[in-house]
Amino acid sequence: MAKGLVKKEENYSQWYNEIVTKADLAENSAVRGCMVIKPYGYSIWEKMQSVLDGMFKETGHVNAYFPLFIPKSFFSKEASHVEGFAKECAVVTHYRLKTGEDGNIEVDETAKLEEELIVRPTSETIIWNTYKNWIKSYRDLPLLVNQWANVVRWEMRTRLFLRTTEFLWQEGHTAHATKEEAIAETKQMVEVYAKFAEEFLAMPVIIGTKTEKERFAGAVETYCIEALMQDGKALQAGTSHFLGQNFAKAFDVKFLTKENKEEFVWASSWGVSTRLMGALVMAHSDNNGLVLPPKLAPIQVVIVPIYKSEEELEIISKRVDVLCAELKSKNISCKYDNRDSQRPGFKFAEWELKGVPVRIAIGPKDYANNTWEVARRDTLTKEIISDEIIVSYIEGLMTEIQDNIYKKAYDFRTQNTHKVDTWEEFKNVIKNTPGFIEAHWDGTSETEEKIKTETKATIRLIPVNPVLEEGKCVYSGKSSKYRVLFAKSY
Amino acid sequence: MAKGLVKKEENYSQWYNEIVTKADLAENSAVRGCMVIKPYGYSIWEKMQSVLDGMFKETGHVNAYFPLFIPKSFFSKEASHVEGFAKECAVVTHYRLKTGEDGNIEVDETAKLEEELIVRPTSETIIWNTYKNWIKSYRDLPLLVNQWANVVRWEMRTRLFLRTTEFLWQEGHTAHATKEEAIAETKQMVEVYAKFAEEFLAMPVIIGTKTEKERFAGAVETYCIEALMQDGKALQAGTSHFLGQNFAKAFDVKFLTKENKEEFVWASSWGVSTRLMGALVMAHSDNNGLVLPPKLAPIQVVIVPIYKSEEELEIISKRVDVLCAELKSKNISCKYDNRDSQRPGFKFAEWELKGVPVRIAIGPKDYANNTWEVARRDTLTKEIISDEIIVSYIEGLMTEIQDNIYKKAYDFRTQNTHKVDTWEEFKNVIKNTPGFIEAHWDGTSETEEKIKTETKATIRLIPVNPVLEEGKCVYSGKSSKYRVLFAKSY
Repeated sequence: MAKGLVKKEENYSQWYNEIVTKADLAENSAVRGCMVIKPYGYSIWEKMQSVLDGMFKETGHVNAYFPLFIPKSFFSKEASHVEGFAKECAVVTHYRLKTGEDGNIEVDETAKLEEELIVRPTSETIIWNTYKNWIKSYRDLPLLVNQWANVVRWEMRTRLFLRTTEFLWQEGHTAHATKEEAIAETKQMVEVYAKFAEEFLAMPVIIGTKTEKERFAGAVETYCIEALMQDGKALQAGTSHFLGQNFAKAFDVKFLTKENKEEFVWASSWGVSTRLMGALVMAHSDNNGLVLPPKLAPIQVVIVPIYKSEEELEIISKRVDVLCAELKSKNISCKYDNRDSQRPGFKFAEWELKGVPVRIAIGPKDYANNTWEVARRDTLTKEIISDEIIVSYIEGLMTEIQDNIYKKAYDFRTQNTHKVDTWEEFKNVIKNTPGFIEAHWDGTSETEEKIKTETKATIRLIPVNPVLEEGKCVYSGKSSKYRVLFAKSY
Repeated sequence: MAKGLVKKEENYSQWYNEIVTKADLAENSAVRGCMVIKPYGYSIWEKMQSVLDGMFKETGHVNAYFPLFIPKSFFSKEASHVEGFAKECAVVTHYRLKTGEDGNIEVDETAKLEEELIVRPTSETIIWNTYKNWIKSYRDLPLLVNQWANVVRWEMRTRLFLRTTEFLWQEGHTAHATKEEAIAETKQMVEVYAKFAEEFLAMPVIIGTKTEKERFAGAVETYCIEALMQDGKALQAGTSHFLGQNFAKAFDVKFLTKENKEEFVWASSWGVSTRLMGALVMAHSDNNGLVLPPKLAPIQVVIVPIYKSEEELEIISKRVDVLCAELKSKNISCKYDNRDSQRPGFKFAEWELKGVPVRIAIGPKDYANNTWEVARRDTLTKEIISDEIIVSYIEGLMTEIQDNIYKKAYDFRTQNTHKVDTWEEFKNVIKNTPGFIEAHWDGTSETEEKIKTETKATIRLIPVNPVLEEGKCVYSGKSSKYRVLFAKSY
């Protein structure tokens, strides 16, 4: 099975697609740009959801659900928001089909909507229209609401998980009495995302703010986490927006302060999506397939029996059952792959492709010696482990593999982050050894745009607490006080 | 707060709406027929999801996700399916908006889809189109997949939770090698639904099959659970369909048997939705508001302090903190309502309206006596309980209230189920004392239709194991071998 994978050094993009489809994560559907998330892929997404949902609730948020459809006119209410989103919407214009004269199904033209409905690309407008009725006084604040939902953005060039017309996400929408509180919330949530990325995805990220050009349509400030993929491109993995009073003003959401004064409400919104699945694949996988961090692996340990007769299988299975039960009692998920239809070699390759962190094999010799053969997915190494210590050994491996995967990605990022001070070097690095570039920038959109046009590199973020140093913009030569992070990106 | 509720005896429909909106479960949105599920309502739905999802996984199912959009042509492939669903669909015809000459946002007519997309009303077609690629041999079967999703059916007359244009649900779609296995799956899942309704919603249900007329569009047999609401109307709370080979044939899904023969795959599909939220409200609520079964209550115990001074509150709060911690250690969720802005009477009414199963009050006298005042939401009774036994007492109440709510609903159903043998009596019962009617039916759609036209009562179900008895159809007088269940319904 794994044999079929193209090498990532040869064709990175194809390598990615093959892992996603062959490891049963997702596939393209009959609907242009929409994906089917397959059971194995969805079970990873469920784990992500469960951890994130717990983190949101710990920080005081509650879930709710808002309509899929947004009246067209809502988009006109926040000027910059409509510019950012109106160009890529699925528009519902009719509410009935009928059987035509030729017997085919066609749209019933008599069932035309008075006002078209947009399938939500993001829900700020419908939610702030709702908040208008929920918020009357300071007692109703803060309002800390999250929604798990599907959204649609009409993308012309799609890639499984990374950019799809429909995707799954969560979107937090909070309302606050003061600017300071809304900013604190915005920062808190980008830090929650960073913590999740580092501790669960085992993916190091950098926190920063976006330039005006890259900011969310309707935001005053956009915080983001950026991660480096193995091809040296950056991937934006989560964003948290300080919306100021923009949506409160657009939807006339005011509250009475303690001092009985009427004021507009302050807002944040923040989201991560199934794009994280793409990040997970790209951050750790190798030429044998997916490499999953134990904390997000649906199956943490797979056990493959090696046997020649039914009798051998029976004896081995009894010992495996005991081990499985013990692992489960330690909250380690365990699959016994006793399929008779496939050979061990096929199974090894399949579970490697699917990224299972630990594979245990047991044959008659291991049985006789009271040992197990333990293979690590991250290092592809094998060891013979005595039955006496197997459970604690596996327990230890769960932490060790999680840490090792993180460290590998961290070291990769360090090796592929370049301090660049001249325009020649900048172009060289982008062309030959892509990765993060730390460089001075003069702070203008004009220079940002020119750099993008010439190299396809964009400013991924402005560091939150930049190291102050006098320098000159790598492009214009104008003076600059700190470096920003450039990269080509997904 | 509760004062505002209309009495259910006076205006049942308004009473229902007021509970849903005033108890913060849901409200109508700016989009016709679409609801906003508010945080309190959504937290109940999350509990339902979590329990159901566990039951699905225990029975071997896995989750996946399929596209929101379905190409129009897919609906034509299963003849009866299109008849049932094509009349009530949201149709996406364009993929872009633009700013018009007058500065308003309008649909970009140049961005018209070649083939219109339907927002899924149910996903059989897109899923079976996908299964075609997943199923090759008997080794790929059974395929036991569930999806949690939103769906859209364009409803003309909507009611919060019971009938909305968009709703949330789960839809299971399974594929099997044999007819027997698919039927067994269909039955298993309707039994899972019945168990969930009875043990968690505390709502007694009857299992049966639908008549041909009431069957799911595309099914060979539809199993359902039906519950009786407090106004004597029936509510269909879940359905499980045996689809035969209809969708396999429509989408050409064949598999190789062990004997290397090519055969069409057998199918089931089954679903429950946010309609269960409506059922929950209608099954148990009273004129003071919602009554929640402890197993689904987001807050199981609320504690209200009664005090005159800050010092009193401080002393009381210390004892409350200890109780809350002890209850939490028993997995009983507990909220301490120490808001200074509201009086105890207001709080009592609010938590009654929101259906919290147990309310505990503590004032200086209780403090001095080492007691708590415990009020049950289901019986509206109060007792003084000593601090020594309070935790085990509350633990016991959780079970007692759950059982009592079920019993009350069960007794109500028994009292409102009538064996009817004449047409006069049938009409009388429907008009004056609505409820379930057990009556003989001649088995024809014609009679079924006439009964519906004359009384608005429909056949809710044909019992799975009916008591065999010779009888005459209540309408036509023709002979019949068992009774079926009639009622007016939601």
